[in-house]
Amino acid sequence: MKNLITDVAGLRVGNAQDPRIASGVTTVLFEAPAVASIAIHGGAPGGRDTALLEPGMTVESVNALVLSGGSVYGLDSMGGVTAFLRAQGQGFSVGAIKVPIAPGAVLFDLLNGGDKDFGGEPIYWRLGFEAAAVAGLDFSLGTAGAGYGATTADLKGGLGSASAQSASGFTVGALVAVNAVGRATIGEGPHFWAAPYEREAEFGRLGWPALWPSPDFKIKSVEPQNTTIAIVATDAALTRSEAKRLAVMAQDGMARALRPAHAAMDGDTVFSAATGLASKPATLTDKIEIGALAADCLARAIARAVYEARALPFAASPPDWRKRFGKS
Amino acid sequence: MKNLITDVAGLRVGNAQDPRIASGVTTVLFEAPAVASIAIHGGAPGGRDTALLEPGMTVESVNALVLSGGSVYGLDSMGGVTAFLRAQGQGFSVGAIKVPIAPGAVLFDLLNGGDKDFGGEPIYWRLGFEAAAVAGLDFSLGTAGAGYGATTADLKGGLGSASAQSASGFTVGALVAVNAVGRATIGEGPHFWAAPYEREAEFGRLGWPALWPSPDFKIKSVEPQNTTIAIVATDAALTRSEAKRLAVMAQDGMARALRPAHAAMDGDTVFSAATGLASKPATLTDKIEIGALAADCLARAIARAVYEARALPFAASPPDWRKRFGKS
Repeated sequence: MKNLITDVAGLRVGNAQDPRIASGVTTVLFEAPAVASIAIHGGAPGGRDTALLEPGMTVESVNALVLSGGSVYGLDSMGGVTAFLRAQGQGFSVGAIKVPIAPGAVLFDLLNGGDKDFGGEPIYWRLGFEAAAVAGLDFSLGTAGAGYGATTADLKGGLGSASAQSASGFTVGALVAVNAVGRATIGEGPHFWAAPYEREAEFGRLGWPALWPSPDFKIKSVEPQNTTIAIVATDAALTRSEAKRLAVMAQDGMARALRPAHAAMDGDTVFSAATGLASKPATLTDKIEIGALAADCLARAIARAVYEARALPFAASPPDWRKRFGKS
Repeated sequence: MKNLITDVAGLRVGNAQDPRIASGVTTVLFEAPAVASIAIHGGAPGGRDTALLEPGMTVESVNALVLSGGSVYGLDSMGGVTAFLRAQGQGFSVGAIKVPIAPGAVLFDLLNGGDKDFGGEPIYWRLGFEAAAVAGLDFSLGTAGAGYGATTADLKGGLGSASAQSASGFTVGALVAVNAVGRATIGEGPHFWAAPYEREAEFGRLGWPALWPSPDFKIKSVEPQNTTIAIVATDAALTRSEAKRLAVMAQDGMARALRPAHAAMDGDTVFSAATGLASKPATLTDKIEIGALAADCLARAIARAVYEARALPFAASPPDWRKRFGKS
């Protein structure tokens, strides 16, 4: 186990990033089309081909899912992934042409200090293509991919991942780009809200603060400069409706790891995917546990994203967790 | 401040319960129609007149909101509240007739040991009428109202409430009937998941366990015998869309206080209401804080519900928190 979403059989992950624009793209490619769905609980989402992920819609499985920086400009990245998939002969057939399905969501990193004069080239399209081209079982966390330019209310955000196994052997994983309106840590200290769910010392094993700070509500901005976007996956076989339930349950991990979350000026979104490569069917109890583990994995992945991040070399960049708390 | 939802100006709460059927009803009555909305994040909800609470629907305000035991039978309770409201001359006018709006949701307490042979009388209708008739600023918590027959995976559930004030003086409150598929406490010990949000010693001030138990997923049942239903309210003036956002943000309190939540076999639902009686308009920052406080209040109210509950005198009743942990 790598403690990455790639512990789930049947998928690979690729990152691409551009230091000049201080942004990037992360994509999950599925070996075979995976049943997928979505839960959008933030108030200001940005996405591409997300409507088809709802129960009742015809196309039930996807070839890829995409997370991107760049806000509305990042919505080009799914086009690059789509083109890459076509070049690989993927997608469902409509007559003589392939139609790859690669929905995705974006986060806002347009004021992070990078050079956002994108010019006449579709830079996010190219980053999407590149991320798909390098997809594998290993990938970087922290200041990487869709998390490259991400921030939280007070610390550098980033890309995180985690995985777990259910009691009866199903694998669950999460991948997240943390660009939260709120904080992943408690008060002014180094402790993570996700502490109860930590495995090993994946984000420093600091536990909880000895003294609890007064509740506060530090936020990054009341402008829509926020949004945490995530993908959870399992090797269980799920229906579209069950995948929707998985995405909704996984959102609880965001609630537990970030405070506040799901506000009017973020677009907090979770995609879910089921590769169905497990050797047995999941019972109803298994599915509850998979949902609960997806929430745990997402909470852990959020903490890992902030824990692994490194600040950008711009005045606008918030400090990273390690520098801020002297753990570097 | 009573640390109840009735700290929010412009509303009263009434409970009615029947020990024989081991169930009850709780209603919130608004002095003037309140802008209201809903977030249904569980997979198996039961409700009455909930569709009209979505953004885009014409009727934007309600006279009452109702929480009830009884599953599908409890859907009669909103009729009793509606009849009471009409007798008070409330409701909007359509020609010569009043149309009171009293949406509500139900929880499943049909296997808790009570006598569920309801016979030929509309017992929940009468409980709804009675709850409305006794509504006031004080009401009981624990084994009362809609929480009378409620349970969690391992302990007696119940009715809870809590309130808070924002930095700029808006009041927020929550009311909840906790009938969770999961647990409000951590592992086999007495500590509440909601501990980080506790004010004063409203649920015993136990903090966190010194040693964390392994993560587990004890659940009550894979049958739909679950559902936690809640109402959050504020004195801020909100639009219907803003009220929807408030309900969504408040669901994060359920995520933080219960594990698991939002599963396929619960109908976890949060109603939101804005009385608009505050003396000033809420800024966008105020609204984020109100949403975050609604989540906090709901988490606290869930812990208080379990903390205040007393077991029912039936073999089927799980123990209450105080007896189980020797704090009675």
